[in-house]
Amino acid sequence: MQDHIRFDDDGLHLLDQRVVPARIEWVHCRTAADAADAIRDMVIRGAPAIGITAAYGMALASRAGEDLEEAARVLLAARPTAVNLRWAVEHMQSLPVSTWDDAARTLHEEDIAINRAIGGHGAALLPEGSTVYTHCNAGALATGGWGTALGVVRSAWEAGRLAHVIAGETRPYLQGARLTAWECQQEDIPCTLVTDSTAASLMAAGKVDAVVVGADRVAANGDVANKIGTLGLAVLARHYGVPFYVAVPHSTLDARTPTGADIPIEERDASEVRGHGGARWAADVDVFNPAFDVTPADLVTGGWITERGLWQPPHQDPLR
Amino acid sequence: MQDHIRFDDDGLHLLDQRVVPARIEWVHCRTAADAADAIRDMVIRGAPAIGITAAYGMALASRAGEDLEEAARVLLAARPTAVNLRWAVEHMQSLPVSTWDDAARTLHEEDIAINRAIGGHGAALLPEGSTVYTHCNAGALATGGWGTALGVVRSAWEAGRLAHVIAGETRPYLQGARLTAWECQQEDIPCTLVTDSTAASLMAAGKVDAVVVGADRVAANGDVANKIGTLGLAVLARHYGVPFYVAVPHSTLDARTPTGADIPIEERDASEVRGHGGARWAADVDVFNPAFDVTPADLVTGGWITERGLWQPPHQDPLR
Repeated sequence: MQDHIRFDDDGLHLLDQRVVPARIEWVHCRTAADAADAIRDMVIRGAPAIGITAAYGMALASRAGEDLEEAARVLLAARPTAVNLRWAVEHMQSLPVSTWDDAARTLHEEDIAINRAIGGHGAALLPEGSTVYTHCNAGALATGGWGTALGVVRSAWEAGRLAHVIAGETRPYLQGARLTAWECQQEDIPCTLVTDSTAASLMAAGKVDAVVVGADRVAANGDVANKIGTLGLAVLARHYGVPFYVAVPHSTLDARTPTGADIPIEERDASEVRGHGGARWAADVDVFNPAFDVTPADLVTGGWITERGLWQPPHQDPLR
Repeated sequence: MQDHIRFDDDGLHLLDQRVVPARIEWVHCRTAADAADAIRDMVIRGAPAIGITAAYGMALASRAGEDLEEAARVLLAARPTAVNLRWAVEHMQSLPVSTWDDAARTLHEEDIAINRAIGGHGAALLPEGSTVYTHCNAGALATGGWGTALGVVRSAWEAGRLAHVIAGETRPYLQGARLTAWECQQEDIPCTLVTDSTAASLMAAGKVDAVVVGADRVAANGDVANKIGTLGLAVLARHYGVPFYVAVPHSTLDARTPTGADIPIEERDASEVRGHGGARWAADVDVFNPAFDVTPADLVTGGWITERGLWQPPHQDPLR
């Protein structure tokens, strides 16, 4: 995988994830508002990648002499569910403005190192020759690089412990079909793409050794907000005795959110469900399109894999 | 709903369900092979509708002086999972060839009457003001008319017992988004379209009073083969205490198939998962695309609704 977030003297360059894998195009951000647009419009997505983009957005604001309070406000409003967005903006605000370029770069580099550590801890938990089911894209593209859930997959592949990945396509935005499948293909990791509805019969047939997903926010009690469909996978995994893991950096654990019920769930436009890209196929009826769901902590049967190893709720350190 | 299967002196006319709701087009069949093509290519789908089409296909073969054994063979090979296909062909073969035109018409009319009866029994099982979740399309379009699962919805709506239908879009072929939503819209039944992955959070929030689906085949022990995703809904419904109903004509109960493990599961082309219609979005990886899954009888917590009322396995009458 090449870098998908590049920061240089000319600004911030983001691989446009809306058109991968059909086209490789880049979006150029020169202001915090550009970065906020890229987050809101899903040029870039994935909680850690959103956080890194927001940090670079703050650096862009300082370079351009923007109102820094306003820049923070615009970035924080871009998407409501991912806690890393708030975490990254507040982290930048805690540092001298003169250091923001370097601070954002450091945050980016640290995220990759964190993902490598998550991957190492996760890989050690998987049995030899595992088949892992994953949902959405918690890969290099969702992070600074390497990935959280897909980082576990990458590390397990590197360690020779992985036989196969099954990627749920992840309607409506199809991050599994478009991004996870593409990432696996880039690195010759054996990957099979399925519709989200196929997970149950795969688990019933004993073909899944573990489910590993990322998260947009983990409440203090361990409840997990992640891409819509995660909750259903967790219920299925419980029913079929398949361990269910959540792979996240510590920055995704949110001590200020007591339970999943306190996590705002973004609802997105009906057009995402009525079709995809330029295509539209659905009859003209009402649509309900929540982007995330909340998996209660007791369904996270495998555990929460962080850069420090397996985490156990409750999370009690507000400063992390 | 207008008729979607029309049989006249000029042959068999089928509403092309591949392009509904974008376009209303008809496919004209003059031979058994035409009818088999229409079934295989999914011009028409749904177990009862496939059976009716096969019966008309046999009638077309007799009109055209075709080899009737060959006609039966071609029709039976069109799709492997729906038992109604075999049932309808064998039913026609049991009757004098001179009566086949009328016999096929009678089968079609009886199917509508059966669906009305299923609807009546099912509606009585739902609490007042129910919200029903349904999957795929087990509606008028999947049958001779009225529908099985959606027949229950129609009858409940007619009886004033239904508040709302939630239609799962049903990837990959999107029968929920395209057909069920369209059928509800035609009759002003309040309908909300969701991705299949949204079912879990709806049930967790207490927003679903019953799940009602159709079936392509019910084994003698009550195991249910139906559209991929049905099994996952049944596991979720069990987890959240939501009653799970299967609405089927008696002809879908297959005494010759002891359990779900004996039901052949059709695998369809990877292109259905890699995109839809002319659009393609997925990365170029392996795809697993089973069209159906098997729900074990013990997850059918509400019961099997047939034209005779609630059925209980085992099914012991090979002649039905």
